[in-house]
Amino acid sequence: MDQRDTDTLTAGSAEVVSASFDRTADPRLRRILVSLVEHLHGFVSEVGLTESEWATAIRFLTDTGKTCTDTRQEFILLSDVLGVSMLVETINNPSGGGLTSSTVEGPFHLVDSPPRELGAAISEDGQGEPCLVSGRVTDPDGRAVPGATVDVWQADAHGFYDVQQPGMYQEGTLRGLFRTGDDGEYWFRSVVPRFYPVPVDGPVGALLRATSRHPYRPAHIHLQVDAPGMRTVTTHVFVDHTPYLASDAVFGVKEDLVREFPVVDDAARAARVGLHNPFRAVRFDVVLAAEPAGPASAVG
Amino acid sequence: MDQRDTDTLTAGSAEVVSASFDRTADPRLRRILVSLVEHLHGFVSEVGLTESEWATAIRFLTDTGKTCTDTRQEFILLSDVLGVSMLVETINNPSGGGLTSSTVEGPFHLVDSPPRELGAAISEDGQGEPCLVSGRVTDPDGRAVPGATVDVWQADAHGFYDVQQPGMYQEGTLRGLFRTGDDGEYWFRSVVPRFYPVPVDGPVGALLRATSRHPYRPAHIHLQVDAPGMRTVTTHVFVDHTPYLASDAVFGVKEDLVREFPVVDDAARAARVGLHNPFRAVRFDVVLAAEPAGPASAVG
Repeated sequence: MDQRDTDTLTAGSAEVVSASFDRTADPRLRRILVSLVEHLHGFVSEVGLTESEWATAIRFLTDTGKTCTDTRQEFILLSDVLGVSMLVETINNPSGGGLTSSTVEGPFHLVDSPPRELGAAISEDGQGEPCLVSGRVTDPDGRAVPGATVDVWQADAHGFYDVQQPGMYQEGTLRGLFRTGDDGEYWFRSVVPRFYPVPVDGPVGALLRATSRHPYRPAHIHLQVDAPGMRTVTTHVFVDHTPYLASDAVFGVKEDLVREFPVVDDAARAARVGLHNPFRAVRFDVVLAAEPAGPASAVG
Repeated sequence: MDQRDTDTLTAGSAEVVSASFDRTADPRLRRILVSLVEHLHGFVSEVGLTESEWATAIRFLTDTGKTCTDTRQEFILLSDVLGVSMLVETINNPSGGGLTSSTVEGPFHLVDSPPRELGAAISEDGQGEPCLVSGRVTDPDGRAVPGATVDVWQADAHGFYDVQQPGMYQEGTLRGLFRTGDDGEYWFRSVVPRFYPVPVDGPVGALLRATSRHPYRPAHIHLQVDAPGMRTVTTHVFVDHTPYLASDAVFGVKEDLVREFPVVDDAARAARVGLHNPFRAVRFDVVLAAEPAGPASAVG
Protein backbone atom coordinates (compact mmCIF):
# COMPACT_ATOMS: atom_id res chain seq x y z
CA MET A 1 0.00 0.00 0.00
CA ASP A 2 1.57 3.30 -0.99
CA GLN A 3 1.90 6.36 1.22
CA ARG A 4 -1.00 8.19 -0.40
CA ASP A 5 -3.43 5.37 0.27
CA THR A 6 -2.55 5.12 3.93
CA ASP A 7 -2.69 8.89 4.39
CA THR A 8 -6.19 9.02 3.00
CA LEU A 9 -7.26 6.07 5.06
CA THR A 10 -5.85 7.54 8.26
CA ALA A 11 -7.47 10.89 7.80
CA GLY A 12 -10.80 9.17 7.29
CA SER A 13 -10.65 6.68 10.14
CA ALA A 14 -9.41 9.14 12.77
CA GLU A 15 -12.13 11.61 11.74
CA VAL A 16 -14.90 9.04 12.09
CA VAL A 17 -13.70 7.87 15.51
CA SER A 18 -13.09 11.42 16.74
CA ALA A 19 -16.67 12.32 15.81
CA SER A 20 -17.89 9.52 18.09
CA PHE A 21 -16.63 11.63 21.01
CA ASP A 22 -18.70 14.68 20.00
CA ARG A 23 -21.12 14.31 22.90
CA THR A 24 -18.43 14.03 25.59
CA ALA A 25 -19.52 16.39 28.37
CA ASP A 26 -15.99 17.15 29.64
CA PRO A 27 -14.25 19.26 26.95
CA ARG A 28 -10.81 18.36 28.29
CA LEU A 29 -11.50 14.61 28.06
CA ARG A 30 -12.81 15.10 24.56
CA ARG A 31 -9.72 17.03 23.48
CA ILE A 32 -7.43 14.35 24.90
CA LEU A 33 -9.32 11.50 23.20
CA VAL A 34 -9.50 13.23 19.83
CA SER A 35 -5.76 13.89 19.91
CA LEU A 36 -5.07 10.32 21.08
CA VAL A 37 -7.15 8.87 18.25
CA GLU A 38 -5.43 11.05 15.65
CA HIS A 39 -1.97 10.05 16.81
CA LEU A 40 -2.85 6.39 17.31
CA HIS A 41 -4.39 6.05 13.86
CA GLY A 42 -1.49 8.06 12.42
CA PHE A 43 0.96 5.58 13.94
CA VAL A 44 -0.92 2.48 12.75
CA SER A 45 -1.22 3.85 9.21
CA GLU A 46 2.31 5.20 9.01
CA VAL A 47 3.87 1.82 9.77
CA GLY A 48 1.11 -0.18 8.04
CA LEU A 49 0.69 -2.31 11.14
CA THR A 50 -0.01 -5.95 10.21
CA GLU A 51 -2.64 -8.08 11.91
CA SER A 52 0.04 -10.20 13.55
CA GLU A 53 1.90 -7.10 14.83
CA TRP A 54 -1.40 -5.80 16.20
CA ALA A 55 -1.95 -9.14 17.98
CA THR A 56 1.58 -8.90 19.43
CA ALA A 57 0.80 -5.40 20.71
CA ILE A 58 -2.43 -6.63 22.33
CA ARG A 59 -0.53 -9.45 24.05
CA PHE A 60 2.22 -7.06 25.19
CA LEU A 61 -0.25 -4.60 26.72
CA THR A 62 -2.20 -7.42 28.39
CA ASP A 63 0.99 -8.91 29.86
CA THR A 64 2.04 -5.46 31.06
CA GLY A 65 -1.25 -5.10 32.93
CA LYS A 66 -0.95 -8.61 34.37
CA THR A 67 2.56 -7.85 35.65
CA CYS A 68 1.30 -4.96 37.80
CA THR A 69 0.87 -5.70 41.50
CA ASP A 70 0.58 -3.61 44.65
CA THR A 71 4.36 -3.17 44.62
CA ARG A 72 5.12 -3.30 40.92
CA GLN A 73 3.89 -0.87 38.26
CA GLU A 74 4.89 -2.18 34.84
CA PHE A 75 2.87 0.45 32.91
CA ILE A 76 4.77 3.23 34.70
CA LEU A 77 7.97 1.41 33.80
CA LEU A 78 6.81 1.26 30.17
CA SER A 79 6.03 4.97 30.29
CA ASP A 80 9.51 5.51 31.79
CA VAL A 81 11.50 3.58 29.15
CA LEU A 82 9.52 5.25 26.34
CA GLY A 83 10.46 8.66 27.78
CA VAL A 84 6.80 9.56 28.38
CA SER A 85 7.13 9.97 32.17
CA MET A 86 10.03 12.37 31.70
CA LEU A 87 8.15 14.29 29.01
CA VAL A 88 5.11 14.71 31.30
CA GLU A 89 7.43 15.77 34.13
CA THR A 90 9.10 18.34 31.89
CA ILE A 91 5.86 19.75 30.50
CA ASN A 92 4.38 20.24 33.96
CA ASN A 93 7.28 21.69 35.89
CA PRO A 94 8.93 25.03 35.55
CA SER A 95 12.59 25.14 34.59
CA GLY A 96 15.22 27.62 33.54
CA GLY A 97 16.00 30.89 35.29
CA GLY A 98 18.22 29.05 37.76
CA LEU A 99 15.41 26.88 39.14
CA THR A 100 16.40 23.33 40.06
CA SER A 101 15.12 21.01 37.32
CA SER A 102 12.68 18.27 38.18
CA THR A 103 13.03 14.68 37.12
CA VAL A 104 11.05 11.44 37.47
CA GLU A 105 9.95 10.39 40.96
CA GLY A 106 10.40 6.69 40.21
CA PRO A 107 8.74 3.79 42.01
CA PHE A 108 10.83 3.76 45.22
CA HIS A 109 9.53 6.81 47.06
CA LEU A 110 7.70 6.09 50.33
CA VAL A 111 4.96 8.41 51.52
CA ASP A 112 6.59 8.56 54.94
CA SER A 113 10.35 8.93 54.99
CA PRO A 114 11.59 8.86 58.60
CA PRO A 115 12.05 12.39 60.02
CA ARG A 116 15.73 12.88 60.99
CA GLU A 117 17.89 15.57 62.56
CA LEU A 118 20.20 17.53 60.28
CA GLY A 119 23.46 15.64 59.97
CA ALA A 120 21.96 12.22 60.71
CA ALA A 121 23.38 9.12 59.04
CA ILE A 122 20.82 7.46 56.74
CA SER A 123 22.83 4.33 55.86
CA GLU A 124 22.21 1.61 58.44
CA ASP A 125 25.31 -0.48 57.84
CA GLY A 126 27.54 2.21 56.33
CA GLN A 127 28.69 -0.24 53.66
CA GLY A 128 30.21 1.55 50.69
CA GLU A 129 32.05 4.84 50.39
CA PRO A 130 31.04 7.27 53.14
CA CYS A 131 29.53 10.41 51.74
CA LEU A 132 28.57 13.84 53.04
CA VAL A 133 25.57 15.36 51.27
CA SER A 134 24.71 19.00 51.82
CA GLY A 135 23.18 22.00 50.15
CA ARG A 136 21.15 25.12 50.55
CA VAL A 137 17.52 25.65 49.66
CA THR A 138 16.75 29.10 48.28
CA ASP A 139 14.14 31.03 46.37
CA PRO A 140 14.90 32.26 42.84
CA ASP A 141 16.47 35.41 44.29
CA GLY A 142 18.96 33.40 46.34
CA ARG A 143 17.22 33.99 49.68
CA ALA A 144 17.50 31.08 52.11
CA VAL A 145 14.33 29.04 52.66
CA PRO A 146 14.35 27.99 56.34
CA GLY A 147 12.11 25.10 57.40
CA ALA A 148 11.96 23.53 53.94
CA THR A 149 11.43 19.77 54.02
CA VAL A 150 14.07 17.79 52.15
CA ASP A 151 12.89 14.24 51.59
CA VAL A 152 15.73 12.03 50.36
CA TRP A 153 15.93 8.40 49.27
CA GLN A 154 18.64 6.45 47.50
CA ALA A 155 19.99 3.02 46.58
CA ASP A 156 22.81 1.46 48.57
CA ALA A 157 26.37 0.75 47.40
CA HIS A 158 25.08 -2.37 45.64
CA GLY A 159 22.33 -0.54 43.75
CA PHE A 160 19.31 -1.62 45.82
CA TYR A 161 16.67 0.31 47.77
CA ASP A 162 15.58 -0.88 51.23
CA VAL A 163 12.18 -1.97 49.89
CA GLN A 164 13.87 -4.28 47.38
CA GLN A 165 15.56 -6.24 50.16
CA PRO A 166 12.88 -6.94 52.76
CA GLY A 167 14.35 -8.12 56.05
CA MET A 168 17.86 -6.93 55.21
CA TYR A 169 17.51 -3.41 56.58
CA GLN A 170 15.18 -1.67 58.99
CA GLU A 171 12.48 0.14 57.05
CA GLY A 172 13.57 3.66 56.24
CA THR A 173 17.25 3.06 55.80
CA LEU A 174 18.78 5.24 53.10
CA ARG A 175 15.79 7.54 53.48
CA GLY A 176 15.24 10.65 55.53
CA LEU A 177 13.01 13.67 55.93
CA PHE A 178 15.13 16.69 56.88
CA ARG A 179 14.23 20.27 57.63
CA THR A 180 16.49 23.12 56.59
CA GLY A 181 17.90 25.41 59.27
CA ASP A 182 17.58 29.20 59.41
CA ASP A 183 20.31 29.47 56.80
CA GLY A 184 18.36 27.19 54.39
CA GLU A 185 21.03 24.49 54.76
CA TYR A 186 20.45 20.74 54.90
CA TRP A 187 23.06 18.03 55.42
CA PHE A 188 23.25 14.34 56.13
CA ARG A 189 25.64 11.42 56.09
CA SER A 190 25.25 8.53 53.72
CA VAL A 191 27.13 6.30 51.27
CA VAL A 192 27.67 6.83 47.55
CA PRO A 193 24.83 5.04 45.71
CA ARG A 194 25.46 2.67 42.84
CA PHE A 195 23.83 2.58 39.40
CA TYR A 196 21.12 -0.09 39.12
CA PRO A 197 18.81 -1.78 36.60
CA VAL A 198 15.09 -1.22 36.29
CA PRO A 199 13.15 -4.49 36.72
CA VAL A 200 13.74 -6.67 33.65
CA ASP A 201 11.73 -9.81 34.46
CA GLY A 202 8.53 -8.50 32.84
CA PRO A 203 7.34 -7.39 29.38
CA VAL A 204 9.31 -4.12 29.56
CA GLY A 205 12.50 -6.11 30.20
CA ALA A 206 11.71 -8.18 27.11
CA LEU A 207 11.27 -4.97 25.12
CA LEU A 208 14.65 -3.67 26.29
CA ARG A 209 16.33 -6.95 25.32
CA ALA A 210 14.64 -7.04 21.91
CA THR A 211 15.97 -3.56 21.22
CA SER A 212 19.46 -4.14 22.66
CA ARG A 213 18.89 -1.43 25.27
CA HIS A 214 20.51 -1.76 28.68
CA PRO A 215 18.24 -1.41 31.74
CA TYR A 216 20.49 0.77 33.91
CA ARG A 217 19.98 4.06 35.67
CA PRO A 218 23.07 6.10 36.52
CA ALA A 219 23.82 6.47 40.25
CA HIS A 220 21.71 9.16 41.92
CA ILE A 221 20.13 10.38 45.15
CA HIS A 222 16.44 11.36 45.04
CA LEU A 223 15.29 14.60 46.66
CA GLN A 224 11.80 16.00 47.02
CA VAL A 225 11.97 19.52 48.41
CA ASP A 226 8.98 21.47 49.64
CA ALA A 227 8.33 24.69 51.56
CA PRO A 228 5.26 26.81 52.30
CA GLY A 229 4.50 29.13 49.38
CA MET A 230 7.03 27.36 47.15
CA ARG A 231 6.48 24.82 44.41
CA THR A 232 7.59 21.28 45.35
CA VAL A 233 10.44 19.95 43.24
CA THR A 234 11.01 16.23 42.75
CA THR A 235 14.51 15.69 41.50
CA HIS A 236 17.79 13.73 41.65
CA VAL A 237 21.40 14.60 42.16
CA PHE A 238 23.42 12.40 39.78
CA VAL A 239 26.93 11.21 40.61
CA ASP A 240 29.27 12.57 37.93
CA HIS A 241 31.25 9.91 36.02
CA THR A 242 28.78 7.18 37.02
CA PRO A 243 28.21 4.63 34.26
CA TYR A 244 25.10 5.20 32.10
CA LEU A 245 24.98 8.94 32.71
CA ALA A 246 24.59 9.43 28.94
CA SER A 247 22.07 6.61 28.50
CA ASP A 248 19.73 6.53 31.53
CA ALA A 249 17.14 3.81 30.79
CA VAL A 250 14.35 6.22 31.81
CA PHE A 251 15.82 9.43 30.30
CA GLY A 252 15.88 11.16 33.70
CA VAL A 253 19.24 12.96 33.46
CA LYS A 254 19.36 16.72 33.12
CA GLU A 255 22.75 18.41 32.97
CA ASP A 256 22.12 20.78 35.86
CA LEU A 257 21.49 17.81 38.16
CA VAL A 258 24.94 16.20 37.77
CA ARG A 259 27.50 16.88 40.50
CA GLU A 260 31.05 15.86 41.29
CA PHE A 261 31.31 13.76 44.46
CA PRO A 262 35.01 14.54 45.15
CA VAL A 263 37.09 12.58 47.66
CA VAL A 264 37.87 14.62 50.77
CA ASP A 265 41.00 13.54 52.68
CA ASP A 266 40.77 15.68 55.83
CA ALA A 267 40.85 13.80 59.14
CA ALA A 268 39.76 16.82 61.21
CA ARG A 269 36.77 17.51 58.99
CA ALA A 270 35.89 13.80 58.88
CA ALA A 271 35.87 13.73 62.69
CA ARG A 272 33.76 16.89 62.81
CA VAL A 273 31.03 15.49 60.50
CA GLY A 274 31.26 11.98 61.92
CA LEU A 275 32.54 10.11 58.87
CA HIS A 276 35.56 7.87 58.30
CA ASN A 277 38.46 9.60 56.55
CA PRO A 278 38.70 9.82 53.56
CA PHE A 279 35.13 10.42 52.50
CA ARG A 280 33.30 11.85 49.50
CA ALA A 281 31.23 15.01 49.56
CA VAL A 282 28.63 16.61 47.34
CA ARG A 283 26.97 20.01 47.45
CA PHE A 284 23.53 20.24 45.86
CA ASP A 285 21.76 23.55 46.22
CA VAL A 286 18.06 23.61 45.45
CA VAL A 287 16.29 26.65 43.98
CA LEU A 288 12.51 26.49 44.42
CA ALA A 289 9.97 28.40 42.33
CA ALA A 290 7.28 30.41 44.09
CA GLU A 291 3.96 28.58 44.05
CA PRO A 292 1.59 30.24 41.59
CA ALA A 293 -1.21 32.03 43.45
CA GLY A 294 -4.82 30.93 43.28
CA PRO A 295 -6.58 27.59 43.07
CA ALA A 296 -3.80 26.03 40.98
CA SER A 297 -1.74 25.76 44.15
CA ALA A 298 -4.10 23.13 45.52
CA VAL A 299 -3.47 20.88 42.51
CA GLY A 300 0.37 20.89 42.42
CA MET B 1 3.21 26.69 28.18
CA ASP B 2 2.71 27.99 24.66
CA GLN B 3 2.57 25.89 21.52
CA ARG B 4 6.08 26.74 20.43
CA ASP B 5 7.59 25.53 23.68
CA THR B 6 5.81 22.19 23.54
CA ASP B 7 6.69 21.69 19.88
CA THR B 8 10.36 22.17 20.63
CA LEU B 9 10.17 19.89 23.63
CA THR B 10 8.38 17.16 21.70
CA ALA B 11 10.79 17.16 18.83
CA GLY B 12 13.64 16.88 21.30
CA SER B 13 12.20 14.20 23.54
CA ALA B 14 10.98 11.92 20.73
CA GLU B 15 14.37 12.22 19.04
CA VAL B 16 16.28 11.23 22.16
CA VAL B 17 14.05 8.23 22.86
CA SER B 18 14.03 7.14 19.22
CA ALA B 19 17.84 7.17 19.21
CA SER B 20 17.77 4.69 22.12
CA PHE B 21 16.39 2.14 19.63
CA ASP B 22 19.31 2.57 17.22
CA ARG B 23 20.80 -0.82 18.00
CA THR B 24 17.56 -2.78 17.52
CA ALA B 25 18.51 -5.76 15.34
CA ASP B 26 15.08 -6.12 13.71
CA PRO B 27 14.59 -3.12 11.39
CA ARG B 28 10.82 -3.57 11.35
CA LEU B 29 10.62 -3.49 15.17
CA ARG B 30 12.80 -0.40 15.17
CA ARG B 31 10.62 1.37 12.62
CA ILE B 32 7.49 0.57 14.61
CA LEU B 33 8.97 1.79 17.91
CA VAL B 34 10.36 5.01 16.43
CA SER B 35 6.99 5.83 14.90
CA LEU B 36 5.20 4.90 18.14
CA VAL B 37 7.47 7.17 20.18
CA GLU B 38 7.01 10.09 17.78
CA HIS B 39 3.23 9.82 17.87
CA LEU B 40 3.06 9.16 21.61
CA HIS B 41 5.25 12.14 22.48
CA GLY B 42 3.36 14.20 19.90
CA PHE B 43 0.09 13.36 21.63
CA VAL B 44 1.39 14.10 25.16
CA SER B 45 2.85 17.44 24.07
CA GLU B 46 -0.10 18.48 21.93
CA VAL B 47 -2.56 18.16 24.81
CA GLY B 48 -0.04 19.19 27.49
CA LEU B 49 -0.91 16.09 29.50
CA THR B 50 -0.92 16.86 33.23
CA GLU B 51 0.63 14.59 35.85
CA SER B 52 -2.80 13.69 37.21
CA GLU B 53 -4.09 12.87 33.71
CA TRP B 54 -1.00 10.72 33.14
CA ALA B 55 -1.72 8.90 36.41
CA THR B 56 -5.33 8.34 35.28
CA ALA B 57 -4.06 6.87 32.01
CA ILE B 58 -1.71 4.53 33.88
CA ARG B 59 -4.59 3.35 36.08
CA PHE B 60 -6.87 2.90 33.06
CA LEU B 61 -4.31 0.78 31.18
CA THR B 62 -3.56 -1.28 34.31
CA ASP B 63 -7.28 -1.92 34.92
CA THR B 64 -7.72 -2.86 31.27
CA GLY B 65 -4.98 -5.48 31.61
CA LYS B 66 -6.45 -6.78 34.87
CA THR B 67 -9.88 -7.16 33.24
CA CYS B 68 -8.49 -9.57 30.62
CA THR B 69 -9.16 -13.27 31.28
CA ASP B 70 -9.10 -16.42 29.18
CA THR B 71 -12.55 -15.51 27.87
CA ARG B 72 -12.44 -11.70 27.96
CA GLN B 73 -10.04 -9.44 26.03
CA GLU B 74 -10.50 -5.87 27.22
CA PHE B 75 -7.50 -4.52 25.24
CA ILE B 76 -9.03 -5.82 22.00
CA LEU B 77 -12.27 -4.15 23.04
CA LEU B 78 -10.35 -0.92 23.65
CA SER B 79 -8.73 -1.26 20.22
CA ASP B 80 -12.22 -1.87 18.80
CA VAL B 81 -13.93 1.18 20.32
CA LEU B 82 -11.00 3.41 19.32
CA GLY B 83 -11.38 2.21 15.71
CA VAL B 84 -7.88 0.73 15.70
CA SER B 85 -8.99 -2.88 15.04
CA MET B 86 -11.02 -1.74 12.04
CA LEU B 87 -8.13 0.39 10.76
CA VAL B 88 -5.72 -2.57 10.98
CA GLU B 89 -8.31 -4.77 9.25
CA THR B 90 -8.72 -2.22 6.46
CA ILE B 91 -5.00 -1.67 5.95
CA ASN B 92 -4.30 -5.39 5.66
CA ASN B 93 -7.12 -6.55 3.46
CA PRO B 94 -7.75 -5.85 -0.20
CA SER B 95 -10.94 -4.06 -1.12
CA GLY B 96 -12.55 -2.44 -4.11
CA GLY B 97 -12.87 -4.00 -7.57
CA GLY B 98 -15.96 -5.85 -6.43
CA LEU B 99 -14.18 -7.83 -3.69
CA THR B 100 -16.20 -8.43 -0.54
CA SER B 101 -14.94 -6.04 2.16
CA SER B 102 -13.54 -7.44 5.35
CA THR B 103 -14.50 -6.27 8.81
CA VAL B 104 -13.53 -7.07 12.40
CA GLU B 105 -13.55 -10.69 13.53
CA GLY B 106 -14.71 -9.81 17.02
CA PRO B 107 -14.29 -11.92 20.16
CA PHE B 108 -17.00 -14.53 19.53
CA HIS B 109 -15.45 -16.67 16.80
CA LEU B 110 -14.68 -20.26 17.80
CA VAL B 111 -11.80 -22.09 16.15
CA ASP B 112 -14.09 -25.03 15.46
CA SER B 113 -17.55 -24.20 14.20
CA PRO B 114 -19.59 -27.41 13.78
CA PRO B 115 -19.47 -28.72 10.17
CA ARG B 116 -23.01 -28.80 8.76
CA GLU B 117 -24.75 -29.84 5.54
CA LEU B 118 -25.93 -27.09 3.20
CA GLY B 119 -29.38 -26.01 4.26
CA ALA B 120 -28.99 -27.04 7.90
CA ALA B 121 -30.69 -25.03 10.64
CA ILE B 122 -28.17 -23.39 12.99
CA SER B 123 -30.63 -22.04 15.57
CA GLU B 124 -31.34 -24.64 18.23
CA ASP B 125 -34.63 -23.30 19.51
CA GLY B 126 -35.70 -21.35 16.44
CA GLN B 127 -36.78 -18.45 18.66
CA GLY B 128 -37.06 -15.22 16.71
CA GLU B 129 -37.88 -14.50 13.09
CA PRO B 130 -37.00 -17.44 10.85
CA CYS B 131 -34.45 -16.48 8.23
CA LEU B 132 -33.02 -18.02 5.09
CA VAL B 133 -29.39 -17.03 4.43
CA SER B 134 -27.84 -17.82 1.06
CA GLY B 135 -25.25 -16.59 -1.38
CA ARG B 136 -22.66 -17.52 -3.94
CA VAL B 137 -18.90 -17.50 -3.51
CA THR B 138 -17.02 -16.41 -6.62
CA ASP B 139 -13.62 -15.20 -7.74
CA PRO B 140 -13.23 -11.58 -8.94
CA ASP B 141 -14.26 -12.65 -12.46
CA GLY B 142 -17.57 -14.04 -11.22
CA ARG B 143 -16.57 -17.71 -11.54
CA ALA B 144 -18.12 -19.97 -8.90
CA VAL B 145 -15.77 -21.22 -6.18
CA PRO B 146 -16.90 -24.77 -5.32
CA GLY B 147 -15.75 -26.32 -2.05
CA ALA B 148 -15.19 -22.96 -0.33
CA THR B 149 -15.65 -23.13 3.44
CA VAL B 150 -18.20 -20.65 4.81
CA ASP B 151 -17.84 -20.36 8.57
CA VAL B 152 -20.78 -18.46 10.09
CA TRP B 153 -21.63 -17.31 13.60
CA GLN B 154 -24.23 -14.93 14.93
CA ALA B 155 -26.13 -13.69 17.97
CA ASP B 156 -29.64 -14.92 18.69
CA ALA B 157 -32.86 -12.92 18.57
CA HIS B 158 -32.01 -11.49 22.00
CA GLY B 159 -28.52 -10.33 20.99
CA PHE B 160 -26.46 -13.05 22.67
CA TYR B 161 -23.96 -15.59 21.35
CA ASP B 162 -24.04 -19.19 22.59
CA VAL B 163 -20.80 -18.69 24.56
CA GLN B 164 -22.37 -15.82 26.49
CA GLN B 165 -25.09 -18.10 27.88
CA PRO B 166 -23.34 -21.27 29.05
CA GLY B 167 -25.79 -24.10 29.69
CA MET B 168 -28.62 -22.46 27.73
CA TYR B 169 -27.73 -23.90 24.33
CA GLN B 170 -25.65 -26.81 23.10
CA GLU B 171 -22.22 -25.58 22.09
CA GLY B 172 -22.17 -24.59 18.46
CA THR B 173 -25.70 -23.28 18.15
CA LEU B 174 -25.95 -20.31 15.80
CA ARG B 175 -22.66 -21.44 14.28
CA GLY B 176 -21.86 -23.58 11.29
CA LEU B 177 -19.10 -24.54 8.89
CA PHE B 178 -20.59 -24.98 5.40
CA ARG B 179 -19.02 -25.97 2.11
CA THR B 180 -20.19 -24.46 -1.16
CA GLY B 181 -21.56 -26.77 -3.85
CA ASP B 182 -20.34 -27.01 -7.44
CA ASP B 183 -22.24 -23.82 -8.25
CA GLY B 184 -20.42 -21.94 -5.45
CA GLU B 185 -23.69 -21.62 -3.50
CA TYR B 186 -24.11 -21.86 0.28
CA TRP B 187 -27.36 -21.68 2.24
CA PHE B 188 -28.60 -22.32 5.73
CA ARG B 189 -31.59 -21.67 7.98
CA SER B 190 -31.37 -19.41 11.01
CA VAL B 191 -33.10 -16.56 12.82
CA VAL B 192 -32.63 -12.81 12.36
CA PRO B 193 -29.98 -11.69 14.87
CA ARG B 194 -30.49 -8.73 17.15
CA PHE B 195 -28.18 -5.79 17.80
CA TYR B 196 -26.23 -6.13 21.06
CA PRO B 197 -23.89 -4.20 23.37
CA VAL B 198 -20.16 -4.81 23.75
CA PRO B 199 -19.26 -5.67 27.39
CA VAL B 200 -19.62 -2.52 29.51
CA ASP B 201 -18.71 -3.77 32.98
CA GLY B 202 -14.98 -2.97 32.57
CA PRO B 203 -12.76 0.09 31.94
CA VAL B 204 -13.87 0.35 28.29
CA GLY B 205 -17.50 0.53 29.42
CA ALA B 206 -16.52 3.36 31.78
CA LEU B 207 -14.85 5.15 28.86
CA LEU B 208 -18.00 4.82 26.73
CA ARG B 209 -20.14 6.21 29.58
CA ALA B 210 -17.75 9.10 30.22
CA THR B 211 -17.99 10.06 26.56
CA SER B 212 -21.76 9.52 26.21
CA ARG B 213 -21.17 6.81 23.60
CA HIS B 214 -23.61 3.89 23.35
CA PRO B 215 -22.12 0.37 23.41
CA TYR B 216 -24.22 -1.23 20.64
CA ARG B 217 -23.31 -3.09 17.50
CA PRO B 218 -25.93 -3.20 14.72
CA ALA B 219 -27.41 -6.65 14.01
CA HIS B 220 -25.15 -8.80 11.81
CA ILE B 221 -24.11 -12.33 10.87
CA HIS B 222 -20.38 -13.12 10.80
CA LEU B 223 -18.86 -14.98 7.87
CA GLN B 224 -15.31 -16.18 7.35
CA VAL B 225 -14.92 -17.54 3.84
CA ASP B 226 -11.90 -19.47 2.60
CA ALA B 227 -10.96 -21.52 -0.43
CA PRO B 228 -7.72 -23.00 -1.79
CA GLY B 229 -5.75 -20.40 -3.72
CA MET B 230 -8.02 -17.59 -2.51
CA ARG B 231 -7.55 -15.05 0.21
CA THR B 232 -9.65 -15.65 3.34
CA VAL B 233 -12.16 -12.89 4.04
CA THR B 234 -13.52 -12.24 7.53
CA THR B 235 -16.66 -10.19 7.25
CA HIS B 236 -20.26 -9.54 8.36
CA VAL B 237 -23.57 -9.16 6.60
CA PHE B 238 -25.45 -6.36 8.39
CA VAL B 239 -29.24 -6.30 8.63
CA ASP B 240 -30.45 -3.16 6.89
CA HIS B 241 -32.55 -0.79 9.06
CA THR B 242 -31.13 -2.34 12.27
CA PRO B 243 -30.59 0.24 15.01
CA TYR B 244 -27.01 1.58 15.32
CA LEU B 245 -26.11 0.94 11.69
CA ALA B 246 -24.74 4.48 11.50
CA SER B 247 -22.96 4.33 14.86
CA ASP B 248 -21.51 0.83 15.37
CA ALA B 249 -19.56 0.97 18.66
CA VAL B 250 -16.59 -0.71 16.94
CA PHE B 251 -16.83 1.07 13.54
CA GLY B 252 -17.26 -2.23 11.69
CA VAL B 253 -19.92 -1.22 9.15
CA LYS B 254 -19.01 -0.91 5.48
CA GLU B 255 -21.75 0.03 3.06
CA ASP B 256 -21.23 -2.94 0.75
CA LEU B 257 -21.93 -5.31 3.67
CA VAL B 258 -25.46 -4.09 4.43
CA ARG B 259 -28.35 -6.13 2.99
CA GLU B 260 -32.11 -6.03 3.10
CA PHE B 261 -33.62 -9.05 4.89
CA PRO B 262 -37.05 -8.84 3.21
CA VAL B 263 -40.08 -10.74 4.48
CA VAL B 264 -41.02 -13.61 2.16
CA ASP B 265 -44.67 -14.69 2.37
CA ASP B 266 -44.66 -17.85 0.21
CA ALA B 267 -45.99 -21.02 1.85
CA ALA B 268 -44.69 -23.32 -0.93
CA ARG B 269 -41.17 -21.89 -0.74
CA ALA B 270 -41.26 -21.96 3.06
CA ALA B 271 -42.15 -25.65 2.96
CA ARG B 272 -39.40 -26.30 0.40
CA VAL B 273 -36.64 -24.71 2.55
CA GLY B 274 -38.08 -26.01 5.82
CA LEU B 275 -39.05 -22.71 7.47
CA HIS B 276 -42.31 -21.41 8.92
CA ASN B 277 -44.15 -19.03 6.63
CA PRO B 278 -43.66 -16.06 6.48
CA PHE B 279 -39.89 -15.90 6.82
CA ARG B 280 -37.14 -13.44 6.03
CA ALA B 281 -34.43 -14.01 3.47
CA VAL B 282 -31.05 -12.50 2.65
CA ARG B 283 -28.67 -13.05 -0.25
CA PHE B 284 -25.03 -12.32 0.45
CA ASP B 285 -22.62 -13.13 -2.35
CA VAL B 286 -18.95 -13.27 -1.48
CA VAL B 287 -16.20 -12.31 -3.91
CA LEU B 288 -12.79 -13.63 -2.86
CA ALA B 289 -9.43 -12.24 -4.00
CA ALA B 290 -6.82 -14.61 -5.39
CA GLU B 291 -4.13 -15.32 -2.82
CA PRO B 292 -0.92 -13.52 -3.78
CA ALA B 293 1.70 -16.04 -4.98
CA GLY B 294 4.92 -16.71 -3.10
CA PRO B 295 5.86 -16.87 0.58
CA ALA B 296 3.39 -14.15 1.54
CA SER B 297 0.59 -16.68 1.11
CA ALA B 298 1.83 -18.60 4.13
CA VAL B 299 1.38 -15.56 6.35
CA GLY B 300 -2.23 -14.53 5.44
